Amino acid sequence: MAKNLTTRKEDYSKWYNELVVKADLAENSAVRGCMVIKPYGYAIWEKMQAQLDKMFKETGHQNAYFPLFVPKSLFEAEEKNAEGFAKECAIVTHYRLKNDPDNKGKLIVDPDAKLEEELVVRPTSEAIIWNTYKGWIQSYRDLPILVNQWANVVRWEMRTRLFLRTAEFLWQEGHTAHATKAEALAETEQMNNIYAEFAENFMAMPVIKGRKTESERFAGAEETYCIEAMMQDGKALQAGTSHFLGQNFAKAFDVKFATKEGGLDHVWATSWGVSTRLMGALIMTHSDDNGLVLPPNLAPIQVVIVPIYKGEEQLDQISEVANKLAADLREEGISVKYDDRDTQKPGWKFAQYELQGVPVRIAIGPKDLEKGSVELARRDTLSKEFVAQTEVVEKVKGLMNEIQESLHSKARAFRDEHITQVDDFEEFKKVLKDKGGFISAHWDGTSETENKIKEQTKATIRLIPFDGDKEEGTCIFSGKPSAGRVLFAKAY
Amino acid sequence: MAKNLTTRKEDYSKWYNELVVKADLAENSAVRGCMVIKPYGYAIWEKMQAQLDKMFKETGHQNAYFPLFVPKSLFEAEEKNAEGFAKECAIVTHYRLKNDPDNKGKLIVDPDAKLEEELVVRPTSEAIIWNTYKGWIQSYRDLPILVNQWANVVRWEMRTRLFLRTAEFLWQEGHTAHATKAEALAETEQMNNIYAEFAENFMAMPVIKGRKTESERFAGAEETYCIEAMMQDGKALQAGTSHFLGQNFAKAFDVKFATKEGGLDHVWATSWGVSTRLMGALIMTHSDDNGLVLPPNLAPIQVVIVPIYKGEEQLDQISEVANKLAADLREEGISVKYDDRDTQKPGWKFAQYELQGVPVRIAIGPKDLEKGSVELARRDTLSKEFVAQTEVVEKVKGLMNEIQESLHSKARAFRDEHITQVDDFEEFKKVLKDKGGFISAHWDGTSETENKIKEQTKATIRLIPFDGDKEEGTCIFSGKPSAGRVLFAKAY
Repeated sequence: MAKNLTTRKEDYSKWYNELVVKADLAENSAVRGCMVIKPYGYAIWEKMQAQLDKMFKETGHQNAYFPLFVPKSLFEAEEKNAEGFAKECAIVTHYRLKNDPDNKGKLIVDPDAKLEEELVVRPTSEAIIWNTYKGWIQSYRDLPILVNQWANVVRWEMRTRLFLRTAEFLWQEGHTAHATKAEALAETEQMNNIYAEFAENFMAMPVIKGRKTESERFAGAEETYCIEAMMQDGKALQAGTSHFLGQNFAKAFDVKFATKEGGLDHVWATSWGVSTRLMGALIMTHSDDNGLVLPPNLAPIQVVIVPIYKGEEQLDQISEVANKLAADLREEGISVKYDDRDTQKPGWKFAQYELQGVPVRIAIGPKDLEKGSVELARRDTLSKEFVAQTEVVEKVKGLMNEIQESLHSKARAFRDEHITQVDDFEEFKKVLKDKGGFISAHWDGTSETENKIKEQTKATIRLIPFDGDKEEGTCIFSGKPSAGRVLFAKAY
Repeated sequence: MAKNLTTRKEDYSKWYNELVVKADLAENSAVRGCMVIKPYGYAIWEKMQAQLDKMFKETGHQNAYFPLFVPKSLFEAEEKNAEGFAKECAIVTHYRLKNDPDNKGKLIVDPDAKLEEELVVRPTSEAIIWNTYKGWIQSYRDLPILVNQWANVVRWEMRTRLFLRTAEFLWQEGHTAHATKAEALAETEQMNNIYAEFAENFMAMPVIKGRKTESERFAGAEETYCIEAMMQDGKALQAGTSHFLGQNFAKAFDVKFATKEGGLDHVWATSWGVSTRLMGALIMTHSDDNGLVLPPNLAPIQVVIVPIYKGEEQLDQISEVANKLAADLREEGISVKYDDRDTQKPGWKFAQYELQGVPVRIAIGPKDLEKGSVELARRDTLSKEFVAQTEVVEKVKGLMNEIQESLHSKARAFRDEHITQVDDFEEFKKVLKDKGGFISAHWDGTSETENKIKEQTKATIRLIPFDGDKEEGTCIFSGKPSAGRVLFAKAY
């Protein structure tokens, strides 16, 4: 496996595209904008799923499954939501193919099999779910409903990139129903916090929590909370969102409940989601010019053992040590691969596991057998050392935490260096151009100013941070009063 | 929760439909033929998924994800497969909606957003996957590929029933690629055996293994192996299939590999799947007129504890015992729900958990506190007994195995009673009408006879059993020679 990755400095975007394919994470498919997630990439996604699913269930949520299709009449019921997604959705109009009379062996759409009502392939499921909840909710006793769905969704994006923006993607979408506004707001915040915890502790990716401006909100939401991360090229990435939907969907679908006090009220709603986009965020937070770098908490293979040998007899001796070591490590809950394939050379294997970001590599050769040692290499620092066989298990256990934390601190230091406080629009443009990153600046709170800044610089307001500076000031663009700083950035 | 289920004797089909809805497993959605899988039903499916996924991984398979859509030109490449699915597929023809100029607030399909090539929503993924494998396979070193996908698929069935036959359903589909025919055949058999093991040991559902006749094979397969189960109403249910696809898809998509010997050969393929249909099979194997009966190995809640009390103080005393008991049971890996809701009466709770098939119910009242006992009820036998609090954990541990095995034996006895050996066509029709079940009969091996029997009786050949009677005989219909008995039945 030759290391012919474009470097990040040369062309960050090209580096990313090459890495995703070469590390066997994903590839483009025959369907415009849709990806194939390859087994190694999917194994990382499965680890993300398992952890998130655990966190959702620990906070009282249950999984369910709703239809892939949304009839057009339901899709258009919540007007803002419909408007937000109508321009980029896949539409099923027919339910049958037939033989092409003019072209033997070919098929054509059967015009006699036109659907009475077109079906939209779900770009998000609020409409179909709230139409269902109508049947589930009569009284306050039926509330809250705390449901999550793991599913595929389709948004017909024109420009796509593996993991970051694809026509079909995988995600989870939580949809909850509550008796009070306060409870729905608390749920919205709780789920945003869960996403932040997951990003920090499992992805080793620092994020900032906050809320979106009106123009960046989810279509149909009254508030969108989010977590934003900073990529190595100075662009921001929205990693998760949690929406307070008010009573908008309850009103659109006429979902009312009998209150404890004997009244009748519309139900309060939230929805929240993260997607396979997190794979892109993970890659662009930690990886380097040698390939993928994975935090141990999400690495499908945490340790790989490679034998270096000549001849069967030597391999047998090494395998004895390697298999015992693998077993001991597995007993500690560490996932280990012993790669004793004879179809590839050790050097090829080293390059492959480096490219695929396996956190720790152990090599065992004939000299190690004599000395009772192994060679241990860290993927993140590329450092190597010899370790006594008796001490490997303890060493590796320690390294799992050390690497996880070291990646987190490194990414946090990078992110912190890339938040620049700016008080003047010329400086704003200069920082955006020369340094990138988040720019903390005063804004007058209007969509008009926000749009003008976006037009002139391509930077958007990523979020109004929850724990941001509350100092009052003057908008860098309009000179009007500002209630506090917000974070601007160019974004994925 | 009133028990107003139709009895099985009255109307089996109605009983099933009512049970699925009343036990909160699934319901029909606003989309024709598509279901909503409710949290309790989905929790059972998750248990099935977890166990199957474990079995697939233990046999060397990895998960991946392929696109939802299949471009028409790929869909039609393998002719028999295309022919088999063309008449019942959802077709995406457009990628945008726009405002209806004649109808404010409504949307219409934008005629300017017509796709150049229509996309078929996958009814199965051989085509898109083999088009992808073409890029993955060059040499024998790239083989075997052992990949599985958990996904949703769409088949535009005209008559649908919750879980048994729905337009969209959830399933797993394994797609493997091999260097030799023998290896592919061994994989086909291995996966059919895994399905059988899962059915027997987790669903407590006896199945017969065998192969399909030519006319019942999967479209595009050279052999279809299957497991067939017998439902309580005497109809058979195909619970899983594993296909040997020969080189058909490799030829359709031109997938060749350099052999070890320096030649060039088409790759050999298998595919295999089970779906949410298994939920229907599970329900119709064990449940009774009181509702669902679940084998402990798949029950989301294995034990429910219900307090019977008057006033806060009594509830506190009972809760102390109940919480300790729940903790002790959880330590043994048993999933327990303590239902201390004050919004429902004990009788309502009893009825609900009976309807939902929770294997063991424990009730604790004030007299139990005095006596140091609990009341323990089995869902499968509806028997009750008092057990000393000190002995409950051991008792319940034993019951988990006992109930699992008892359900299995009961279902096996029923199935065995419903295999009838028949040597004459009049008898065949009589048994089919009066008793139902599998009919073991001689068949001359021709599709012609098979079709005529189907036309006259609606019975199909469910399978040619692997361990069937190899005695030669005379076809019950044509009188021609037969190589062995096959199993006929009416089927879901």
